[in-house]
Parts: sequence; structure tokens; C-alpha cells
Amino acid sequence: MTAADVPALLRETVGEGALITDPAGMGSYLTDWRNAWSGAAAAVVRPGSTEEVAAVVRACRTAGVAVVPQGGNTGLCGGSMPDSSGRQVVLSLDRMRRIRGVDPVDLTITAEAGVVLRSVQQAAAAEGCLFPLSLGSEASCTIGGNLATNAGGTGVLRYGNMRDLTLGLEVVLPDGRIWNGLRALRKDNTGYDLKQLFVGAEGTLGVITAAVLKLFPAVRSRATAWVALPSPQAAVDLIGVVRALCGDRLTGFEVMSRQSVDFVLRHQAGARDLFADVHPWYALVELSDTLPDAGLDGLLEAGLAEAFEREVAADAVVASGSAQVAALWALREGISEAQNFEGPSLKHDVTVPVSSIPAFVERTDRALQAALPGIRIVTYGHIGDGNLHYNLSKPAGSDDAAFRAMAGELARVVYDSTSSFDGSISAEHGLGQSKRDVIADYKDGLELELMRGIKRLLDPPGLMNPGKVLPSA
Amino acid sequence: MTAADVPALLRETVGEGALITDPAGMGSYLTDWRNAWSGAAAAVVRPGSTEEVAAVVRACRTAGVAVVPQGGNTGLCGGSMPDSSGRQVVLSLDRMRRIRGVDPVDLTITAEAGVVLRSVQQAAAAEGCLFPLSLGSEASCTIGGNLATNAGGTGVLRYGNMRDLTLGLEVVLPDGRIWNGLRALRKDNTGYDLKQLFVGAEGTLGVITAAVLKLFPAVRSRATAWVALPSPQAAVDLIGVVRALCGDRLTGFEVMSRQSVDFVLRHQAGARDLFADVHPWYALVELSDTLPDAGLDGLLEAGLAEAFEREVAADAVVASGSAQVAALWALREGISEAQNFEGPSLKHDVTVPVSSIPAFVERTDRALQAALPGIRIVTYGHIGDGNLHYNLSKPAGSDDAAFRAMAGELARVVYDSTSSFDGSISAEHGLGQSKRDVIADYKDGLELELMRGIKRLLDPPGLMNPGKVLPSA
Repeated sequence: MTAADVPALLRETVGEGALITDPAGMGSYLTDWRNAWSGAAAAVVRPGSTEEVAAVVRACRTAGVAVVPQGGNTGLCGGSMPDSSGRQVVLSLDRMRRIRGVDPVDLTITAEAGVVLRSVQQAAAAEGCLFPLSLGSEASCTIGGNLATNAGGTGVLRYGNMRDLTLGLEVVLPDGRIWNGLRALRKDNTGYDLKQLFVGAEGTLGVITAAVLKLFPAVRSRATAWVALPSPQAAVDLIGVVRALCGDRLTGFEVMSRQSVDFVLRHQAGARDLFADVHPWYALVELSDTLPDAGLDGLLEAGLAEAFEREVAADAVVASGSAQVAALWALREGISEAQNFEGPSLKHDVTVPVSSIPAFVERTDRALQAALPGIRIVTYGHIGDGNLHYNLSKPAGSDDAAFRAMAGELARVVYDSTSSFDGSISAEHGLGQSKRDVIADYKDGLELELMRGIKRLLDPPGLMNPGKVLPSA
Repeated sequence: MTAADVPALLRETVGEGALITDPAGMGSYLTDWRNAWSGAAAAVVRPGSTEEVAAVVRACRTAGVAVVPQGGNTGLCGGSMPDSSGRQVVLSLDRMRRIRGVDPVDLTITAEAGVVLRSVQQAAAAEGCLFPLSLGSEASCTIGGNLATNAGGTGVLRYGNMRDLTLGLEVVLPDGRIWNGLRALRKDNTGYDLKQLFVGAEGTLGVITAAVLKLFPAVRSRATAWVALPSPQAAVDLIGVVRALCGDRLTGFEVMSRQSVDFVLRHQAGARDLFADVHPWYALVELSDTLPDAGLDGLLEAGLAEAFEREVAADAVVASGSAQVAALWALREGISEAQNFEGPSLKHDVTVPVSSIPAFVERTDRALQAALPGIRIVTYGHIGDGNLHYNLSKPAGSDDAAFRAMAGELARVVYDSTSSFDGSISAEHGLGQSKRDVIADYKDGLELELMRGIKRLLDPPGLMNPGKVLPSA
């Protein structure tokens, strides 16, 4: 079997209509949205049902052809991109877009892998429920990709990661058999919890085709504040102050360094600074409640008053009205785009325990400045989960290529520091291609050995999304 | 190596003080608290550290001796009991009782496997936090057992099972190597999430020696009501009514059939009926809030008023004061003990989707009455999670032995019905010895094959808690 034979094989399996082989048609499947990753493929196949997915996987297995499952193609680590050989098959789930059911009594939704995250949020809302996963790419990322990468985002503080939101899965195994684990049960202790293997495995152990997800009572009131902070320590202290007063109504807590906000103010149309003074750090704090008229503004103001008293907060604004709320979130969510105007962005997505954040930021910033004086550090993220996006821009006016050439060295600086605080070098983006080798230096050998054992158990020939997650041998 | 050689081997490994070999000393380790399970052992070994656990496991592996990990010995399915051969070694974690740390900023607690659940609750409370796992045996069950069985209980509705509360694990693998996965991270997507393998595996894949667990903001106000209901459908409708009004302040929702309450009223000192009329079902509804003075009584009363209007509730009492709250919980928690006075109890612990509860109860009750006319059905449980304890007592005045002889047949009736509603035959008790064979009839072969593959991967000689969870070959 050569790459040239693959289209004929797949045509037999799922028919001409589900197959793309011309370069123009395959284009959007072979480059990601940022143009950061690209690959080649013998074909892109778009099965319309679980049975068709299984047939494709079986056919490819028999022919010894590798399969690369792909969702919304919004991943940041190249996890759904084929290699450059042109011998792999991209299995896109984009035709599996059916919401199989929403049950507001069970508080569950059953969705196929290709359903866009926002559609799930909307289907839940239509039944008076909340699906709490929320990320920047929610208008284009898909449930299958969210599951494969155990997606995080801004709702994790209160509702957990995608793994925590998953009750059941349907998976096509690497040998083409279908595992129907689509259970809608809140409790089930009848042996090993197999679905946990597939969540976060980035398609290396099988193709997730559908899931039963948890819903929650709808949120009916919110309060949002923008807070100026003297330091990362103040950010951590502010979490404590707000939580002591507001308990688990605290559902969002994002931080941004001044450098991050500067870039947004410079490049985002209409963005404006909320305060007369410049502050080194900012927090976006969100309270929410499932009751309407829950008095959240007053609660948040009381929390901020306490924060001023303790000199944790330097200045603050509680948003009045949805336009101001949107403006505050735009400041936070505009960082990634704004950074692109300043040259190449080197991105790192790390977690450390929340209490370690202040020492971690201090040590990492110092080490980065030592490695490249003048480097601009764009740190922001979900500090309530200990998760920072530790992104880097070149010193102002310096050369792009020279900065890009330092990518590996600078990543080492961030990861070594993360590791010294018992942190994770990939909080929510996964390993994909980009971190599969570097992880070998930060994870103990026993853990890698167990991972390899599981891979071999489920995929002995190694044809399911090869070259991802597991370090090269 | 014979059973007689085992004590000498372990004496060399951990010393005389950690070893029990006399029958009197071993007694409490070889019978469970209900006297439902018993076994024999070559020795009971009580290591005092993770390294000692590893040394014991290594020594036993080398000698070809099976190891049975044991926590508080409160399990209901015989999962921590050795077989009757006298050749197995019980590895008790009861000397590993150290709380290694509590961090109210990270909202984490790190506890060794032998720490009693209540001690973890108390250590969290001392720091102004909540550890939400709560079960009947919390004064004697241990964290290791809670993890091994993925324990549930009354807090799952809001806070999830033990799996959901776990951030990191330390595990001695079946070959005696120590896996240090004690991470305190809220987000970590760097490969397969190995800790998920060990949670709920009932000690068949290794010995959990310590864990990092999630804490939550402390609960500062509560409201509790006892509600009379015309039917299981009314119970499900009541959840909807209360949730629509109170959102995620609804943190407990237990139901009991009249038969369950009757037994408590008959056998529990001081128990009294709350209502003049007899009702077929009752619910215990709890709201809680992390704010003090959160107006929960008023909210609960408004919910109940709505329930009366819709004829969902027949009668209700909102508890005033902690004594009445305790009395209501005593009615609920006294069921299991009260049932013992009525002869043998055949216990079943099942889940179905919440919306299926009414049809499930009707079909199961009818089938049970057909199988044994006059059978007394003691149904109660955590209906908010779809979890019912479907327990059975003999027809009044009939023979104990005849009833016991029907145990298998009656279990089949309950499990067949559960299965027909896509439910689970073990919601929160695990499989242990008692359900390891019956599960083969209710779980698909592919899932059992994957479970066996994982077992072989981690424990090729099958010496780690053999005879549990996995069906006999």
C-alpha cells in the first residue's frame, strides 16, 4: 500500500462525497488557523457517522496507514496536524455535528465530536442550563478537540476542566472497534474508568466520536471588576480576600502584567486604560450566581473595599452594564492578538500551585531578562488555577529572526523555572508535536514508561496520531 | 516460598513491630465491620512509610505472594478482604496517618492513605475550608479506601465523587516502584492522566499511599427540609423546582421510601414521624451557601411553596435549629441499621439517569414483588445523582434462610432492571469480590477486555489484590 492507493481505499469505505484529495480542498485541513503548523496528507476523510469513522480506522489499520483525527483545527501544539510525508490520512470530525440530546432534568447534553463548543453552550442555554467551558476559540473549536486536549479556559476555577465535565464517551479504538461508553451517570464504580484514558490523550489512543457532558444551573447574575495590583503577591492575596467574602461565587479570576495591557492599549481599536496611573499588574474578577438580583455588585464592592484597606488593591472599577463588562473582557482577550503586532510571540502555558505564583514570576522574569536583556514579558492567565500564559516578545527594535532562534533556549528558561516549583509545562494546551520531546526532560521516566505501555496496549502498530504526545524513542 | 515463610520475609523487610501474625491480632483485619466478609492471611503487615510499603510489595512480588491493600475495612463488597487460603498478605495502611500539609491558598490538603476521612474534614475546617466528601462511615473509613473505591456519599450533587476531588497521587506500583504523582495543580495536560487509573481500581493496580485533594470555601449557612412526596416522579420534579429557584445552592437531595422510614420509626430510639399522614416517599433537601446569613430558609420555603402549588410536595417541614437538622439526618442515616432488625438485608447500590428514576422504580418494584410476593423494599439514596440503594428485606414473618437463598435471583431482578435503563449496578460501592463476576453480564466484552489489558500491563503476575474487580477468567 502506497500513499497513492489510499484515496481508492477510502472511496470504497465511505464514498466519494466524504473524501477530499485535491490540494486546494485539503488546504484548510493542512494548516492551522495561526499558520503555525502545516502538514501534508494522502487524503482528508470526513465520515458522517460513528460507523463510518470505524470503517475508516479499520481500513487504514489494515493498510498500515496512519490516521490523524482533527476537530476545529484550533490547537496550539500541532496535535491535529499530519506530518509532512503525505502518507497520513486526516480524519476530520467536521461532519459529525449532531447534538443527540439535551436533558435539563439529568443536566446532560450528548453531542458528537464535531459540534462547535459555542453550539453546545447555546443548546444548553436554550434549556435554561449552563455548559461552563469557555475559551477564546469557542466559536470554532469542537467538542472532540476539547475532550482530546482536556480543554481549560476561564471557567475552570468554579467548574473544572473538560475532563471534569465529562460523564460518558463514544470512542473508535485504534483497531476500529467502537466502544460505547456513552453513559449519563453521575456515579458508576464498576471497574476501571476507561473514559479517563481518552480525555487528554490528543487522539493518540482512539477517535472520540461523541460525549455525554454535564450541564449546570444557568447563571442569572454577574459582577465584574478591573483591579490594579502592585504585584503578583497582591493578586494571590486578592483571591483570598474575595473568596473569604464571596465564597464560591468567585467564578473568574484572570491576571495580566502591565506589558500585556500595554500591547492591547497600543493595538486594539477603542481600548483605553481604566486608571490614570500605571500599575504593574491587573486582575479581572468575576462573581456569578444562579439567582437573579443576587446583590453581587455590593458583594464585590465590599471585597474590594477590604482589599484597599489591606493595600492589596491599588485601584478598581466595578463594571456597570454589559458594555463595560464586554470592554473589560476585550482587554483581557485581546492580549494574544495585540502581541502579534510586536513581532514573533513565543508562547508558554504553565501551571504552578497558586501560592507559588509570586516567587515563580519573580524568578522566571529575572532569568528571562538575564537570558535576553530587554525581552518583553507578556504574562497573563487564569491565576485562580495557577495557570499563566508566559508569552514573550523580542526586545523593542531587535531582529525577528534572532529572537526566533532563541525560542528553544527561552522555553527552557520558563520550563526549568516551572519545574523547580513542581509545576506543569503544559497547563491546558497539551503536548501535541511541539512539546512531545521536551516533556521527556520534565516528567519522570516511570511515568513515561507507563504512558508508552498504555499506548502499546491500545495501539500496537502505532498508527493512531503518531508523533504526538509521546516523546520519540 | 510457602505461606509459612512469609512472616520471616516481611520481618526482614519492615521489622517485627510492623508485623502481625497471631490469629487474635489479625482478627480485626480479617473480618469486616458488618461480619459480611472474612478471610485468612499469612500475615498482616503495617508499614509506616511509602518506602516501607514499596519494600513489602517488592518482597511479596519476588516471593510470588499476593498482597491485599486495606484501609478502614469499611467497604461493602469485600474489596479489602483476603481470600481463605491463608497465603495472602494483608497490607494495612493504618499506620500511615499523617496529614502532610494543608494549604488554604491553594485549597489543597495532602494526606496519607491511612488518614481517616473525618480527620481530613477536620483539618480542612481548622483552616476555614471544606473537604466535601461525606459518608456514613466517615469516622472510620480512610482516604486510601475512599480513593480506591472512588467514594461518593451525600455531597456528590454539588462537589463530585472522590475522583473529582483528587489532584495528585502517590502510588506503589505492583512491582514495588513508587510513582510520585503528588501534584497540587489544577491544570496539567502533559500526557495521559495516570492517577485516573488508580482511583476506583480497588487496589488491583497498586497501593495508593498518599493524595493531594481539593478543598473548597467553607460552608457558612445551611437550610434543611423534610418533604413528603406522593411518588418518585414528584421527587424528580421537586429537584427541578428547587433547582430553578435556588440554583447551585442545592447541595443535598436524599429520598426514602415509606418502607425505609417505617423501619427507622420502629427501631430507632427517639425517631418520630414528622407528619400526621403516611406518605409513600420522603425527601431530605439541603441548601448551603459559603456566605453567612444567606437567607436560605426563606429561599427553601419559597421553593416548597412552589412545590405545593404544583402538587409536587404533599407536606414539608423546614428544620429550625441544629437539633432538628440532626434529627432529620438521623432518620435518613438510620435506615441501614434499622433494616438489620428485620432479618437479612440484601443490598444493591445502583444508578440510573435521574429522569429515569420514576419508571425504574416502578418496573423494579413490580418485578421484585413478582419474584417474591410480600418482599419489603427499602429504597433510599442520593436521588440527585440518580443513585438509589435498592435494599430488600424478607416478607414479614418469613424464613431468613429461604430469603438468603434467593439473594442471587433478586439481585438479578434489580440489576436487569438497572441495565435496561442504561444504569450502573455499582454506583459507589465498587465491585470488590461480591460483584466481580456478575459485572461480566452487564458490561460489554470490549470494556472488560480493556480492563484486563490494563491489569496485565501493570500487574503481569496478578499478585496485587487478586480476585477483585475483574471477573474470573
